[in-house]
Amino acid sequence: MRVYGRKILEEALRNNVPIKKVFFQKMQNPGSYFLSLVEEVEKRGIKYSFESEEKLKNLSGTKKHQGVVFDIEEYRYSSVEEILEAKTPPLIVLLDQIQDPHNLGAIVRTSVGAGANGIIIPKDKSVKVTETVVKVSVGTVFRARIAVVTNLARTIEELKEKGVWTYASDIDGTPIYEEDFTFPTAFVFGNEGEGIRRLVREKCDRVVTIPMENDIDSLNVSVSVGVVLFEAVRQRRMKGAG
Amino acid sequence: MRVYGRKILEEALRNNVPIKKVFFQKMQNPGSYFLSLVEEVEKRGIKYSFESEEKLKNLSGTKKHQGVVFDIEEYRYSSVEEILEAKTPPLIVLLDQIQDPHNLGAIVRTSVGAGANGIIIPKDKSVKVTETVVKVSVGTVFRARIAVVTNLARTIEELKEKGVWTYASDIDGTPIYEEDFTFPTAFVFGNEGEGIRRLVREKCDRVVTIPMENDIDSLNVSVSVGVVLFEAVRQRRMKGAG
Repeated sequence: MRVYGRKILEEALRNNVPIKKVFFQKMQNPGSYFLSLVEEVEKRGIKYSFESEEKLKNLSGTKKHQGVVFDIEEYRYSSVEEILEAKTPPLIVLLDQIQDPHNLGAIVRTSVGAGANGIIIPKDKSVKVTETVVKVSVGTVFRARIAVVTNLARTIEELKEKGVWTYASDIDGTPIYEEDFTFPTAFVFGNEGEGIRRLVREKCDRVVTIPMENDIDSLNVSVSVGVVLFEAVRQRRMKGAG
Repeated sequence: MRVYGRKILEEALRNNVPIKKVFFQKMQNPGSYFLSLVEEVEKRGIKYSFESEEKLKNLSGTKKHQGVVFDIEEYRYSSVEEILEAKTPPLIVLLDQIQDPHNLGAIVRTSVGAGANGIIIPKDKSVKVTETVVKVSVGTVFRARIAVVTNLARTIEELKEKGVWTYASDIDGTPIYEEDFTFPTAFVFGNEGEGIRRLVREKCDRVVTIPMENDIDSLNVSVSVGVVLFEAVRQRRMKGAG
């Protein structure tokens, strides 16, 4: 996988992502942030070279490479177990067939920011971690735990057996402000066009809804994830503070 | 401006957007939603024609036109006055030089869903309402009030004079859960790269922050708008209910 950007390299280094090679741009006045990245790559014995701006543009396919292009091994997914055990009480995101890598990237960034345990996606008909996801997540994907499962409905059953409350975020549910998300919680979000599949929705303990005005029935899915996760964050802070 | 999609046409009709001409696709089994759109266009005396799928693809530049492509007059912006008077207590969004039409589109959709009064953007270095904004907003842009101002800092002063509390949504502020947004409220969000300009931030009454974990300092701006606006919505609902 080929990715680019200074912040992305910083995140990759911070999270010990196996890096095959880094291409840095030859520069007159590189600046201290850039130099600290070169130094860290050198220190870790990672292969690197200095190339022309033109070469980096060709390697990355963009002008926005910020003087840093690099190749990494395939993305390392986590298991559902690892996600469950990462933090207590768990806060887990399940995505039912999200297609758009921009949405997945933004959801990863939001989930890491909200301190969620991780994200679970189905094997079929779902975008996986691509170059675009890495970019849009601003490299936070290297810190996130993401699991790929064969059957999302079965995973919901497993989570319920382990004491996790599963909520479908969909229309015609209880307003999110009226549920208690301070217990072990998993939220399921549907895809951009059709929402959550009926069979997946039916497996969930409850359906919750972001209450909206003006006859709007949904938001961009990455925005919905933000609103719902941070409502859980708010409730957990309040409980902790109380 | 040329746009496409069934839901977008529905929104344009519902909000009496002046439509120059509609191109419908000739279809064997158009379905009742499609037919209701044709009927409404006919009833209103809007010019239309039926064309081949190929023609619609060429007109829209995409295969995702859903059998509906149409031309509208330029987008009709609102004034700051109209935004202020639309609803009480006001809930207003100010965007400091947002560049990405996908972000603006998602923010429009979120603002309409949250029942905000409207969105204020500066004339310079800010994306305006483009075809992409219409598409990403799923046509909600026709229901939204959007004002373009010459000087965002001066607009903040005007809002303050009219009793609106202005909050910069930025790093190093008070957690959003600790402020009271039930009074007349405006939120300022910064652009994708640099955040809010210093001069704009300094004009605001307060700075508020979405509290985050894992050393993450920001979310995608459209996600931030969702989290912050719906925190205001929550507080206002609780106050109304109490």
